[in-house]
Amino acid sequence: MAHQGVKLLGAWASPYSRRVEIALKLKGIDYEFVAETLSPKSADILKYNPVHKKLPIFLHNGKPVVESLVIVEYIDETWSSGPSILPADPLGKANARFWAKFIDDKLMPAIMNIRRCQGEEQVKAIDEVVELFKLLENQLNGKKFFGGDTIGLVDITANFLALWLIIHQEIMGLQIVTEEKLPVFCKWIDEYLNSSVIKQSLPSKEELSAALLAYHKS
Amino acid sequence: MAHQGVKLLGAWASPYSRRVEIALKLKGIDYEFVAETLSPKSADILKYNPVHKKLPIFLHNGKPVVESLVIVEYIDETWSSGPSILPADPLGKANARFWAKFIDDKLMPAIMNIRRCQGEEQVKAIDEVVELFKLLENQLNGKKFFGGDTIGLVDITANFLALWLIIHQEIMGLQIVTEEKLPVFCKWIDEYLNSSVIKQSLPSKEELSAALLAYHKS
Repeated sequence: MAHQGVKLLGAWASPYSRRVEIALKLKGIDYEFVAETLSPKSADILKYNPVHKKLPIFLHNGKPVVESLVIVEYIDETWSSGPSILPADPLGKANARFWAKFIDDKLMPAIMNIRRCQGEEQVKAIDEVVELFKLLENQLNGKKFFGGDTIGLVDITANFLALWLIIHQEIMGLQIVTEEKLPVFCKWIDEYLNSSVIKQSLPSKEELSAALLAYHKS
Repeated sequence: MAHQGVKLLGAWASPYSRRVEIALKLKGIDYEFVAETLSPKSADILKYNPVHKKLPIFLHNGKPVVESLVIVEYIDETWSSGPSILPADPLGKANARFWAKFIDDKLMPAIMNIRRCQGEEQVKAIDEVVELFKLLENQLNGKKFFGGDTIGLVDITANFLALWLIIHQEIMGLQIVTEEKLPVFCKWIDEYLNSSVIKQSLPSKEELSAALLAYHKS
């Protein structure tokens, strides 16, 4: 099948690469996936993302777009097939961008901080993360997804939280996202992981668990 | 004159608040400016930006939008008056967003790092910043502004680099952005600071110098 000049350079276990895959699957765009590693970095990574030398890299007719959220917006603006990933109105767009940025700039660093702490400090770091999750959870406000009835930018951005984080906390024996602390968010995880597009776009829990277990042991 | 329900809660000396002012002036939107401080924080800051408790906060018909770049895109999408701040085509939009993010996430932290270093370490920190500036400079590629013939998202994002940084380096006696090291970027600074919209939107060098000198002495 033709790839319409659409190529994704990504890493299998990367939630950032998977964001792009979700967007492409939502839009029904056929694409070629090129599995890359960050160590060593291929000539293509250095050529197409000389500034950050990171993945994912999206190529459309040979032109590169990088930074996962920039790519997702590019895909939404380029293909009108499938549901819109961002709302049509400027206020809805602004809110989606705000919460996507909140996940990347505020919640993710706070989660990374948990692993750096121990004992009492770790308990405090977990509490801080749960408080941030509650702010995010409030945005669901009775909706099925952050995007409403369909998966939107914030849902895509949150893919790490739905799967990777859950596996990490199981491996590390930590209680961060639990039914008791974050019931609304846990319901979202269920809806999200069971939606057909996400099932097609993310690795299974078993496969990813095996990969992350190897990472924790390394 | 009516304010069309447009209010900006900002700080006079903040480059982030000024980004929003540039966007509003480019679009010819009349607005009410409410001078705020971060210490103490007003009830409005806590009400409208409970997540970050930061400025600027943009209110349109009472609805808040926060994060300066999110606000600038909101303004561009809401008002078609005046020049477009982002290009019309998805690839142009993606590039503008990439370089705006580069300034905020890569260049600004590297600049902040200079002040934390001393001696040989500071020389190295400055060299690193100059290398990042060269990547940005390359994007001008013969154009008057990053946005082409008119001021765009990247130019707006770079307002700190055009004025605040120049004053800081003078006060601190450092050579970061110089004609010799970054001739193309210095030419952009000239064009930018002398454009009519920027003259109306930024404080004068004298006024800002006095404010930043007080900051350095504190």
